[in-house]
Amino acid sequence: MTSSLRDAASRTLSFEPSTVGRSTESTLPDLFQRRVESPSIRRLLLAAVDSFWKSGFHASSTRDIAKRAKLSPAAVYVHFKSKEELLFTIIVVVAERLHERLAATSQEAGDPTERLKRIVQDYVAFPLKMFKAASVANTEFNFLNAAQRKDIVKIRDALELIVADCLKEGCATGEFRIKDIDMMKTAIVALCRSVLRWYSPRGRRSPEQIGEYYAELVVSMVKPAK
Amino acid sequence: MTSSLRDAASRTLSFEPSTVGRSTESTLPDLFQRRVESPSIRRLLLAAVDSFWKSGFHASSTRDIAKRAKLSPAAVYVHFKSKEELLFTIIVVVAERLHERLAATSQEAGDPTERLKRIVQDYVAFPLKMFKAASVANTEFNFLNAAQRKDIVKIRDALELIVADCLKEGCATGEFRIKDIDMMKTAIVALCRSVLRWYSPRGRRSPEQIGEYYAELVVSMVKPAK
Repeated sequence: MTSSLRDAASRTLSFEPSTVGRSTESTLPDLFQRRVESPSIRRLLLAAVDSFWKSGFHASSTRDIAKRAKLSPAAVYVHFKSKEELLFTIIVVVAERLHERLAATSQEAGDPTERLKRIVQDYVAFPLKMFKAASVANTEFNFLNAAQRKDIVKIRDALELIVADCLKEGCATGEFRIKDIDMMKTAIVALCRSVLRWYSPRGRRSPEQIGEYYAELVVSMVKPAK
Repeated sequence: MTSSLRDAASRTLSFEPSTVGRSTESTLPDLFQRRVESPSIRRLLLAAVDSFWKSGFHASSTRDIAKRAKLSPAAVYVHFKSKEELLFTIIVVVAERLHERLAATSQEAGDPTERLKRIVQDYVAFPLKMFKAASVANTEFNFLNAAQRKDIVKIRDALELIVADCLKEGCATGEFRIKDIDMMKTAIVALCRSVLRWYSPRGRRSPEQIGEYYAELVVSMVKPAK
């Protein structure tokens, strides 16, 4: 864990052993429940997600966030150094949860094809289940400071590595035919992440259904017909 | 053409018949040369692309843009109502050029597989050849006003329709096997657009090589092995 991460984490997050990777909590309140001990901080984080989602980071005020959380106007600064740190904590929690999940998924039994399917499915569906927070993480990322961005990029790199490792294994067993693992990994990750840009919770497909569709697309990309 | 488009267009752009769709101009100066009569406006547009690319729309000043274009500080307002309209004109020119190109490509001879390949190749490579402007169009899009955004979305919808039509033709001939044309179109377009987020002009692959790689990926998506 890097310095800014440790810094924010020591104040707000409780880190548990990653044996819980496949645990079934899948909504944001569940996730905060597990990771954040203080009920006030949990309320602040959920209020911040709502506010950033609705008005964007820039137009959200800490006063407003505190009000949504039913706390005093200065409450944010009791627990967070800045609005920026609030955003960072949200993004860290969501990114780490996805990483924890994909790491667990990639360790499950099954051949590389099976595992790649499940990895893509989780990569797509998991953020959709905490759609507002994942969207905020995507669209407001640039408001983080350089050290914070670096920390998040590290987690994202680790996600990409899980995909790349699975691709390599599939090439080794002869299941996949891939000309350029790095290009393929980049394309797969872009595809998984793109869903956040058009998904609507009111749409006709569930996160799981979209995840399954994309998993099949990706399998056909690594196992071309000709 | 919609009102805000006509409005901006009447001031700055010259519209030519689309028989030039396959014309070979591929850099931004070439494109502006063809579309914009006034050399001062061309200089302003190129200066704005550089400035938006370097500093972002928000931090770019019209004074700075005029200076880069070697014009008087007020020059922007002689030709454009606002900084916003300058951005809009850049995005329109780039989006329309891509549309013109894809429309021409989709009319070429060849079976749906061949045409889909060429469409994807152009969709990927063409923006990369005018990378700065295309990036600005992507990242600064949200600074446009609602009417302007609507105009651009119309052009983007037309691009997506070209992809969807080709997918339908391929399904009709039996070349493609696609469960859900709309989902597939969305995935393909997301894949094509994602390249702008990681491409570097100093990278080891040319826009054409990346376009070819992605064209093959897409063909394997619509022609799954099993």
